[in-house]
Amino acid sequence: MTSIPDYVDLDEFDRQKALYGPFTDTVRELVDATIRTEVDDEVIREVQATIAAATAKLRARQLDGAFGRRFTPTGQSVMWGNAGVGLRNAIAPPLVFESDESGRHWTDVNLGAAYEGPPGLVHGGVCALVLDHLLGVTASKGTRRFTGTLTLRYLRGTPLGPVHATATIVGVDGRKATVRGTLSDPDGVTVEAEGIFISPAAPN
Amino acid sequence: MTSIPDYVDLDEFDRQKALYGPFTDTVRELVDATIRTEVDDEVIREVQATIAAATAKLRARQLDGAFGRRFTPTGQSVMWGNAGVGLRNAIAPPLVFESDESGRHWTDVNLGAAYEGPPGLVHGGVCALVLDHLLGVTASKGTRRFTGTLTLRYLRGTPLGPVHATATIVGVDGRKATVRGTLSDPDGVTVEAEGIFISPAAPN
Repeated sequence: MTSIPDYVDLDEFDRQKALYGPFTDTVRELVDATIRTEVDDEVIREVQATIAAATAKLRARQLDGAFGRRFTPTGQSVMWGNAGVGLRNAIAPPLVFESDESGRHWTDVNLGAAYEGPPGLVHGGVCALVLDHLLGVTASKGTRRFTGTLTLRYLRGTPLGPVHATATIVGVDGRKATVRGTLSDPDGVTVEAEGIFISPAAPN
Repeated sequence: MTSIPDYVDLDEFDRQKALYGPFTDTVRELVDATIRTEVDDEVIREVQATIAAATAKLRARQLDGAFGRRFTPTGQSVMWGNAGVGLRNAIAPPLVFESDESGRHWTDVNLGAAYEGPPGLVHGGVCALVLDHLLGVTASKGTRRFTGTLTLRYLRGTPLGPVHATATIVGVDGRKATVRGTLSDPDGVTVEAEGIFISPAAPN
């Protein structure tokens, strides 16, 4: 598949990255503060009006729908609206993946108050989101594959704070790849994951 | 377990709900606009400064950590920081669950640009989050149970927009309950889920 570049100019891509990265980090801080604030009602109301006005300014010119996917001239995929990795999505931590020559992929991320499920613990669905995305990236190295099934085994709660997730392909059978991974807190594994990922059938 | 009420006064609970609900909705709008805006760089920078100042005001007095769980005098659980259902968490859609006498639980939610994974589709991990939370609520009706394993079968992509999820307990064996559910778009089921939920052992 040939990727049609949306960012014809790499300088323009870099400029947007430098603009939107810090901007979205600021919105992430607001999301955290919205949960944790204990200031008086009148301050909440004043801040609410300020944010509504700021949002109206941003909406003066905007995309009709979601961000989707764009490509750089070098074929790099740009998914800035993505809920897992999106540079422009304040819901995304955002996840950043690393890998080595063996095919192992991993991510380190600090999950704060906005990712809470049971008191003091990461939401089980957020654990699933981190592992789903990591296993998908691991499975798609070289061949694009989509999630078929994902099985998560919750060994114990994952405390909010720094977590590490790692995954590797353990088998390939035709169009199916099996990927296994774990999520860990500093004391060890908290969630085990196994996914079956499937590459699309070749066009006839 | 006796719940210690944190909101001794129900009027105070209602007051806070009426204050923080609309406030957090305003922050959700900002998260959406942050992804979709196409305004000029100087407007982005101006809005960034405005939001940073607003966040500082909120942080003038705040909780040390995450929101955790509180209780109303009637024993109602208040998890306003929760990533799935949190009234004060702009990451949460927030999910609202309904149920009938048969034990079936369901939720209807509109997932917009902030929940994107593949272009135009809901992130697989967000599908997992909705189903994890719904199945957990379904499993915990009457008896508190925690997720042991969760298996998700992705039949096809789930388009962004209105989704419906439903779940029911299909079997109980000692401390284990098996719950099955589905996520659907208007055209039918997109993800099937099965979870094993476990109640804590009785204290010796």
